[in-house]
Amino acid sequence: MYVTVVFVKVKKEKILDFIQATKINHESSVKENGNRRFDILQLSEDDSKFILYEAYSDETEAKKHKETSHYLKWRDTVSDWMDEPRKGIVYKGLFPE
Amino acid sequence: MYVTVVFVKVKKEKILDFIQATKINHESSVKENGNRRFDILQLSEDDSKFILYEAYSDETEAKKHKETSHYLKWRDTVSDWMDEPRKGIVYKGLFPE
Repeated sequence: MYVTVVFVKVKKEKILDFIQATKINHESSVKENGNRRFDILQLSEDDSKFILYEAYSDETEAKKHKETSHYLKWRDTVSDWMDEPRKGIVYKGLFPE
Repeated sequence: MYVTVVFVKVKKEKILDFIQATKINHESSVKENGNRRFDILQLSEDDSKFILYEAYSDETEAKKHKETSHYLKWRDTVSDWMDEPRKGIVYKGLFPE
């Protein structure tokens, strides 16, 4: 798996809007052929902080995600809601193989 | 889901040993009733850094993991291989529901 862990901090007043927009992105993303996981996590200690856990079969499939209409819509919808620039960190998924 | 994201930094000379021991832990952990994911990730830019992505149906099931023989064996096996104390961060898994 090719995994991007995206760390997000959202403006307090936009948390519920962010969850709703990200739910829509999740629902379409998990239907992509190369998608393995698209988990949306909220930090237990600070509900303005999230992780998007995006696992794809390989890098090519991960890049295709960035061209989908649901990704582009999500990106534009949430852009003003970020409290700081979000940060995506790339990992090799060792297991499951 | 109740998700713990565990950040690990391993001594350079113990990276392969760590991967092997963690693979064994992974293989048993995914068979636990409450387990949803137990992904082992290696940072692309620094192969001494890992994430253990441990998702359980709820907190009770996550706590049961800490009592399993495979977890306890893994914990004791890798304890001297850490380059710094590992850090587990708890998240609420919003989606999938």
